[in-house]
Amino acid sequence: MFIKNCWYVAGWDKEVPQDGFLSRTIANMPLAIWRDSHNKVIAFEDRCCHRGAPLSKGRREGDCVRCMYHGLKFDVKGICIEIPSQPRIPPQAKVRVFPVVEKHRWIWIWLGDPSLADESLIPDTHWLDDPAWRSNDGYIHYDVNYLLIADNLLDFSHLPYVHPTTLGGTEDYAKVQPKVERTDRGVKITRWALNIDPPAFVQKVHPFEGKVDRWNIYDFIAPGILLMDSGMAPAGTGAPEGNRVNAVEFRGCQALSPEHDNSTHYFFAHPHNFAIDRPDVTDSIHQSVVTAFDEDREIVEAQQAMVALDPNFKMVNLGIDAALSQFRWIVSRAIEQENKSAEPA
Amino acid sequence: MFIKNCWYVAGWDKEVPQDGFLSRTIANMPLAIWRDSHNKVIAFEDRCCHRGAPLSKGRREGDCVRCMYHGLKFDVKGICIEIPSQPRIPPQAKVRVFPVVEKHRWIWIWLGDPSLADESLIPDTHWLDDPAWRSNDGYIHYDVNYLLIADNLLDFSHLPYVHPTTLGGTEDYAKVQPKVERTDRGVKITRWALNIDPPAFVQKVHPFEGKVDRWNIYDFIAPGILLMDSGMAPAGTGAPEGNRVNAVEFRGCQALSPEHDNSTHYFFAHPHNFAIDRPDVTDSIHQSVVTAFDEDREIVEAQQAMVALDPNFKMVNLGIDAALSQFRWIVSRAIEQENKSAEPA
Amino acid sequence: MFIKNCWYVAGWDKEVPQDGFLSRTIANMPLAIWRDSHNKVIAFEDRCCHRGAPLSKGRREGDCVRCMYHGLKFDVKGICIEIPSQPRIPPQAKVRVFPVVEKHRWIWIWLGDPSLADESLIPDTHWLDDPAWRSNDGYIHYDVNYLLIADNLLDFSHLPYVHPTTLGGTEDYAKVQPKVERTDRGVKITRWALNIDPPAFVQKVHPFEGKVDRWNIYDFIAPGILLMDSGMAPAGTGAPEGNRVNAVEFRGCQALSPEHDNSTHYFFAHPHNFAIDRPDVTDSIHQSVVTAFDEDREIVEAQQAMVALDPNFKMVNLGIDAALSQFRWIVSRAIEQENKSAEPA
Repeated sequence: MFIKNCWYVAGWDKEVPQDGFLSRTIANMPLAIWRDSHNKVIAFEDRCCHRGAPLSKGRREGDCVRCMYHGLKFDVKGICIEIPSQPRIPPQAKVRVFPVVEKHRWIWIWLGDPSLADESLIPDTHWLDDPAWRSNDGYIHYDVNYLLIADNLLDFSHLPYVHPTTLGGTEDYAKVQPKVERTDRGVKITRWALNIDPPAFVQKVHPFEGKVDRWNIYDFIAPGILLMDSGMAPAGTGAPEGNRVNAVEFRGCQALSPEHDNSTHYFFAHPHNFAIDRPDVTDSIHQSVVTAFDEDREIVEAQQAMVALDPNFKMVNLGIDAALSQFRWIVSRAIEQENKSAEPA
Repeated sequence: MFIKNCWYVAGWDKEVPQDGFLSRTIANMPLAIWRDSHNKVIAFEDRCCHRGAPLSKGRREGDCVRCMYHGLKFDVKGICIEIPSQPRIPPQAKVRVFPVVEKHRWIWIWLGDPSLADESLIPDTHWLDDPAWRSNDGYIHYDVNYLLIADNLLDFSHLPYVHPTTLGGTEDYAKVQPKVERTDRGVKITRWALNIDPPAFVQKVHPFEGKVDRWNIYDFIAPGILLMDSGMAPAGTGAPEGNRVNAVEFRGCQALSPEHDNSTHYFFAHPHNFAIDRPDVTDSIHQSVVTAFDEDREIVEAQQAMVALDPNFKMVNLGIDAALSQFRWIVSRAIEQENKSAEPA
Repeated sequence: MFIKNCWYVAGWDKEVPQDGFLSRTIANMPLAIWRDSHNKVIAFEDRCCHRGAPLSKGRREGDCVRCMYHGLKFDVKGICIEIPSQPRIPPQAKVRVFPVVEKHRWIWIWLGDPSLADESLIPDTHWLDDPAWRSNDGYIHYDVNYLLIADNLLDFSHLPYVHPTTLGGTEDYAKVQPKVERTDRGVKITRWALNIDPPAFVQKVHPFEGKVDRWNIYDFIAPGILLMDSGMAPAGTGAPEGNRVNAVEFRGCQALSPEHDNSTHYFFAHPHNFAIDRPDVTDSIHQSVVTAFDEDREIVEAQQAMVALDPNFKMVNLGIDAALSQFRWIVSRAIEQENKSAEPA
């Protein structure tokens, strides 16, 4: 059961070819994603209305798509405009077309009621193509339900245990209490650690001489978009008050898009605004993030295996779970409300 | 749910060894198929009545089979005639023996009520061993339900899309309306295309200089036997009226036997009556068919994957589906009637 | 559905490391098994109470275990004594600790009601570390439900068919009627074959010149412990009357521990009391047993595959199944009684 009335990231812009198709399943819906002759991205249900063959194995004919099983031809609106050997085209011969928006390097798709697909709801990830920032494109495929990854992202206490040598830093860092606030569409988490050692992944590319003040400010938008303002400045230079002097800053952009019930697409980048003319710095930061995310994946997939053995397993909620408890409640309520409005009056 | 009261092809004759067993599952029934000392083919349920061990791992002892788990010995009628270390043999100690017929290179099996197993119902495939015809033996294993393959075989409109360079020929050919007729046990499809280009697979072995008149006359017998009279003659020489002058003729024999719910055995051959002394011609025709059937398998397995993602997916039936719609109805009705007669009065 | 109130073998003693963990699932319960600083074996549920991460991927800290996902620390009793960044520890923050006993080379675990975990119920396997006996440690993983393996162990009639060249000996041996008796917790099977040829695996290491009197006396304790007194002596020297003169003796110790519904851990050893200073003899006996057990596995996994195809398959019980029929009844009744006492009054 997934939220439908929301924008999911379906891929990086470069994954949708000029000719041909990106074939990808989001929330159990197979999609054939392509570009018309004006370079506009189009997303079809990847299942011909006739016998269910994947249209992503079809043929582009101008701004139309021909299914390469029986030759049905669909226009850009998904309406069948040709059936070989039969002149009459029944009105139900059409495939579903989903609202789709290409914005700041990501392809966003709306699987629910198209009349609710408001583009202004798309989270701002402009750092992905802002010339003042640099990042590499990241993708990981997870064999777990996306909520276990959201749990992981909404929690800081795992940093010193799962990422001791990468993102984590010292165990002191785990003890810093985050401030958790509800937002319109999710939760905001603010976390400051003052006068601590800088983490290894930053020291590699931008060594600090002494202690730093470090922040992580998360905006987590249900069901799976995480925008993170993070960074550090020399200790005591006033970063908590807003003076980011000699600071190193990141704007992490992360998107969880459920694939099937127990698998997830994870798109991410970690833009930085220093040394932007040095690809080696960008590569180093990216590689640190990838290594850390692989550490997450290892523990989260192990967690999923243990949880799956006992359908009655109940998690014990702790104070450190405030953010994720709220977040799971938001997701549950959204699904409940979608189901209610889908019921007959 | 499969039709039981029908003849399924269980294999090619050469697959049943002189000693030992062919182990094969048809319609979820595991079979141990063997030859007695008179070369008669015998088909046992491949599951010892005692503890369920496969008899195909057993030992032939004359015209008996000994289970190599606990040593029970069964005669040719499946009756247990020896239990080591116990003199009394309970009457229920027997394995099911299925009516089986070896005919024209194929092993036919009847899984339903043996009293209904009428040999005259076995479709005629004499071209498989008629000295005036030649073919190679074909087999493909499909990971889909057999009905999706039957759909594929009952439809011509896919030829130019799935097989453009093999069987298909031009797209004009896809527009020819077939004539569909109900028969006693299935459907007959007649399709004539006049004055068209000959297909590539024939040009390779028997080049025509100009256009041809091409026919495909299918006799599809539920649930999965397809006998095809196909061929072509120089255009305008009267083939539609029955004058097959300078014609090239085939008698395709194809058999779909469900293995499990989502897998199928597919036996086939494509006998031709020209150049029968040239194995290279036979090989070329066979290879063209195999290549084309692999094209079918690729699209049909992709179709199955998409359909499986949504149990509520409804196919839109078109005019080009007349034959397969009738055929699916015949199959459904046969299953319904078998279930009815299996109910207690 | 497994018996819970019983001792299962969870592993060989050497499998539980001094540091770190043995991670193993018994009867669908994942276990993290470790040794405290006094070398005492401890068994935790391998699922942190917080979010379900496996504790076997955790870190030993003295006699405590720290979960390496969010850092919860548990003492030897499974009670959480530290939660990073939160002072209050809720009382439900604890993991299940199972009664566990290390005895005669095996680790025994009790998954049911701890108040019933009576150590005196642990079967005697002292031959595994008795200096007068020698054996190697055996383990096989089976992809079948443990009851099919118990069936196999409780039956002698398969010996000449499954093990003709290893354990079995001649077919005459299969015809010897065993005496089957009910015991407090299982069945006892006594089987004597007088004046027969010695089996190959013994001839290899201790050649007899003539015929032997051979015995197998099984004590099979539900649900999966088999203790076997077996051996042979020169024919007619009085072994049946208790004179084991010039005898070769074994004390087979075998333990079936269900892993999941259709997989099983199988621990075994075959201690002998002759030529105990010759490792080559011990190795030869062990290898004969391993070869024979692989023969069993091959037929039992084939049996499972056939049985799984038909959920309604009913086995025909024969006289040779007396022991296993009784045994299956004992297991069923034990599960029934555990379920009854678990019901609310």
